[in-house]
Amino acid sequence: MDMDTLLVEPIGLEQVEGALGRFFEESKVRAAKIGPGYHGLWETLERCTAGGKRFRPRLVMSAYQMLGGRDLENAAEVGAAFELLHTALIVHDDVIDRDFIRRGIPNVSGRYRSIAEAAGMSAEGARHVGFSAGVIAGDLALSNAYRLLERVEASAAVRRRLGEILDEAVFASAAGEFLDIETSLNPAMPPLEDIVHMARLKTSVYSFEGPLQAGAVLADAQEEVVVRLGEFGRDAGIAYQIADDLLGVFGNETRTGKTNWGDLREGKRTALMSYVSARPEWDSISSLVGSPGMSAAEADQVRRILVDSGARDYSADLAADYASRARTHLESDVVPAALRAALEPVVSAVVDRVR
Amino acid sequence: MDMDTLLVEPIGLEQVEGALGRFFEESKVRAAKIGPGYHGLWETLERCTAGGKRFRPRLVMSAYQMLGGRDLENAAEVGAAFELLHTALIVHDDVIDRDFIRRGIPNVSGRYRSIAEAAGMSAEGARHVGFSAGVIAGDLALSNAYRLLERVEASAAVRRRLGEILDEAVFASAAGEFLDIETSLNPAMPPLEDIVHMARLKTSVYSFEGPLQAGAVLADAQEEVVVRLGEFGRDAGIAYQIADDLLGVFGNETRTGKTNWGDLREGKRTALMSYVSARPEWDSISSLVGSPGMSAAEADQVRRILVDSGARDYSADLAADYASRARTHLESDVVPAALRAALEPVVSAVVDRVR
Repeated sequence: MDMDTLLVEPIGLEQVEGALGRFFEESKVRAAKIGPGYHGLWETLERCTAGGKRFRPRLVMSAYQMLGGRDLENAAEVGAAFELLHTALIVHDDVIDRDFIRRGIPNVSGRYRSIAEAAGMSAEGARHVGFSAGVIAGDLALSNAYRLLERVEASAAVRRRLGEILDEAVFASAAGEFLDIETSLNPAMPPLEDIVHMARLKTSVYSFEGPLQAGAVLADAQEEVVVRLGEFGRDAGIAYQIADDLLGVFGNETRTGKTNWGDLREGKRTALMSYVSARPEWDSISSLVGSPGMSAAEADQVRRILVDSGARDYSADLAADYASRARTHLESDVVPAALRAALEPVVSAVVDRVR
Repeated sequence: MDMDTLLVEPIGLEQVEGALGRFFEESKVRAAKIGPGYHGLWETLERCTAGGKRFRPRLVMSAYQMLGGRDLENAAEVGAAFELLHTALIVHDDVIDRDFIRRGIPNVSGRYRSIAEAAGMSAEGARHVGFSAGVIAGDLALSNAYRLLERVEASAAVRRRLGEILDEAVFASAAGEFLDIETSLNPAMPPLEDIVHMARLKTSVYSFEGPLQAGAVLADAQEEVVVRLGEFGRDAGIAYQIADDLLGVFGNETRTGKTNWGDLREGKRTALMSYVSARPEWDSISSLVGSPGMSAAEADQVRRILVDSGARDYSADLAADYASRARTHLESDVVPAALRAALEPVVSAVVDRVR
């Protein structure tokens, strides 16, 4: 499920595009002075950033404006910082997942793998050149998320707070990526508690909590609103991740843009798998899940067991449950009705897609 | 050549250790709340940072104090930021170079490769787990270099300047790493001009220019001093890199801690190779240089040609030349004699090692 299906009113997105455009323009001019190759790396990074639907900047801008913020140009730098963090995380995530394609086109690693192959390098050497370029490009996006945040004009206290929010997003995302690797070393499926914890770390903090809280803090919102938005973001992100994992197995490939057995072959740790692994049906599929050579027929067999064991319904209910919890955090007089109305579709869309 | 052989008076290093110690302590406490595995990753990162001799913080502290700075605690945060940037770059550089050992002990990738192997993973899978942990750990070090810089107390103008210096260090280092990969795709050895350009990008900016200029800016030094220190750092870093490449081929393995044919096998682009590749002698060794299976006898043959063709002397002279240029930048009344005296051994040591 691409996050662009989660509708949030696009206010001030033009300013976010402006901030990103200026940043890449300046960077490309600097890079060109070093050499055409480095300029090319920056162009590639810009293309990786261009494909997205600005979900995180949308949350920043919505929270900021609906809590009384008026300086869109300033808030846009915060939105752009979160977008660049997102780029950094997907570029490095693709290195970690050994993916060379993103949104149907070659990613940073894919592009530089092709260049190395064309230069006559061995397949393994070219893959590594691709990964290396991905590491470097992700580093540039990550460090410049901090740089964009430095451009924000605000009091020292607000700046400190924004810095802490960005830091928490990086700290939690890195933890989530790391736990993902760690749990994949253990053949047993983790308990549901761990799955939810990882969803919060990998998804909620940087994609929901951070952008919403940053927008609120920049608008000088009262503390209770900032706390409520954090709670909403946490549960909305968990709901999103559980639903996304469901779509990864049962989704329509054309709509999701991904094959729907990649996660099964990889043995991805999800609520679905955690649930079924504690049931007797698990014995009949445990040797298939996580096997790289899984056939289409075997994938169908696994899906059937996931339905029959109740794992699919359980996961869909769980996503709906977190979505509903997310909603309750907004039920407070301190949260303006307009902001509640803007955020409501985010959780509704999650539930609608998996029902 | 390890940079700890380049002597700079260790003033205020205790404060730098304090700043790094506090940072890792706080981070480990936070990480432990997420889980023991993530805490372990932070311990590994701390160990990677602990092995160094604080060359960059030494430069920060020397410049700061000899230009009149008195708040050692504050300057130590800048020193710690550059040390953490150094950790980030070596951790990611090891991923790019596919190295699992650093300073004789397993690096981040080496540690997590072993853990994955012990968990029963295939050799290739375990290597990739190692690289993935390296990517994540490097990201944490990189983003926290920015965080440490945020802790520095200074006027808005000085803070902006410090941010620009760190940014330039990251931008140039990434460019240097990238150009390294790019030139390795071309079988021809690059011209000397490109070798010097890469040395500046990879070594001078973040290890010499940045730390010296950051110390000076924090001490509110006059602009001419900042410029002079940048020029000194640029040429000293180039001299260092050329000398280091010479030691990589001719150095005593026990003293350098590296094998002295790794660079030959890898076909590393150096001043030595650039020089010899334009000479008739090149024909007799071009097929050996960069061949992973190079024997000890073949390495000796390459070394002999490098001596006989004059490449060795040429490189040693070039390093001495850049060291001497570096010195001339300090010959100005605006540079205090004490600072000149502190920096002099840095360039002398470079030349002494390769003579």
